[in-house]
Amino acid sequence: MKTQYYTATSLDGYIADADNSLDWLMQFGEPGESYPPFIAEVGAIAMGSTTYEWLLEHEIYKDKENPKPWPYRQPSWVFSSRTLKKVPNADIHFCKGDVVPIYNEMVKAAEGKNIWIVGGGELAGQFYDKGLLDELIITITPVTLGGGAPLLPRKIAAPPLKLVAVQQYGKHYVEVRYEVAKV
Amino acid sequence: MKTQYYTATSLDGYIADADNSLDWLMQFGEPGESYPPFIAEVGAIAMGSTTYEWLLEHEIYKDKENPKPWPYRQPSWVFSSRTLKKVPNADIHFCKGDVVPIYNEMVKAAEGKNIWIVGGGELAGQFYDKGLLDELIITITPVTLGGGAPLLPRKIAAPPLKLVAVQQYGKHYVEVRYEVAKV
Repeated sequence: MKTQYYTATSLDGYIADADNSLDWLMQFGEPGESYPPFIAEVGAIAMGSTTYEWLLEHEIYKDKENPKPWPYRQPSWVFSSRTLKKVPNADIHFCKGDVVPIYNEMVKAAEGKNIWIVGGGELAGQFYDKGLLDELIITITPVTLGGGAPLLPRKIAAPPLKLVAVQQYGKHYVEVRYEVAKV
Repeated sequence: MKTQYYTATSLDGYIADADNSLDWLMQFGEPGESYPPFIAEVGAIAMGSTTYEWLLEHEIYKDKENPKPWPYRQPSWVFSSRTLKKVPNADIHFCKGDVVPIYNEMVKAAEGKNIWIVGGGELAGQFYDKGLLDELIITITPVTLGGGAPLLPRKIAAPPLKLVAVQQYGKHYVEVRYEVAKV
């Protein structure tokens, strides 16, 4: 059971551009081939409000007349200090504050499977701050953005991350996997 | 003959930390194995004043009593609006302003070999702005810095970069090579 931050980033370390858009990512089409085996091992999901609201606007309610279902069958926790719109028939828990008690809930719900931190970087950073982040699985896309939402706004350099895998997927994607050293 | 931005970066896209330090990089020891074949094909070098002053402080005059020689045999251009200390017996041209006329000088001096933009990101960006940047050769190191000097403060997304190579070097480094699309 691991807590994994799995995301796509620009080469210069942004997960969304300055307009909070993912158009730069969507131009490459479907997610990398590593997603199906990854998601199969996920038992609980965490995301921040920006990620959640992006999903609502761009995925679920993109066509307001014909909303799509919530894309995850795993129980999901959405961290926000605001009251957010609910998605029907979705196992979503809204929460706020310290990640530790929420993490403990998620571990129980995940039943031995992994926890996926979808984003953003600040939420992943809060798990890191508490020693609860085990792996980074980062798809580097062939763009620079020059600004936007940071991949992981923390200094993790001493000890460094441990590189465990590098893999090219298709023509555009480079996936790097790192373990976070436990100190 | 290509203009190449060859540098190391943190996973989150910084080439120096918030204190302008490279300690996070130096902990891994010698540069990657790709440096000797890369530098052998370089005929002229460009760098900004921050990169130049870093070299003076941390390399050449680290031991003030026994200064080291300038590390490059290629003619080098240092972009700065300030008057900087010269290094004895080094083929260094101080310059400022538009990169285009300097680029033309460098092409002549390089005699068919490549131009290396050592850094920083803003100087590489100025070459990019004029359509003069051909390749990014980026060594991704297993650290995040959470802030610092940006790898390349430009949006290059439409068209995206073209991924041409991925290679792991040693235990820590992932080198990615991209061509800049000419539009």
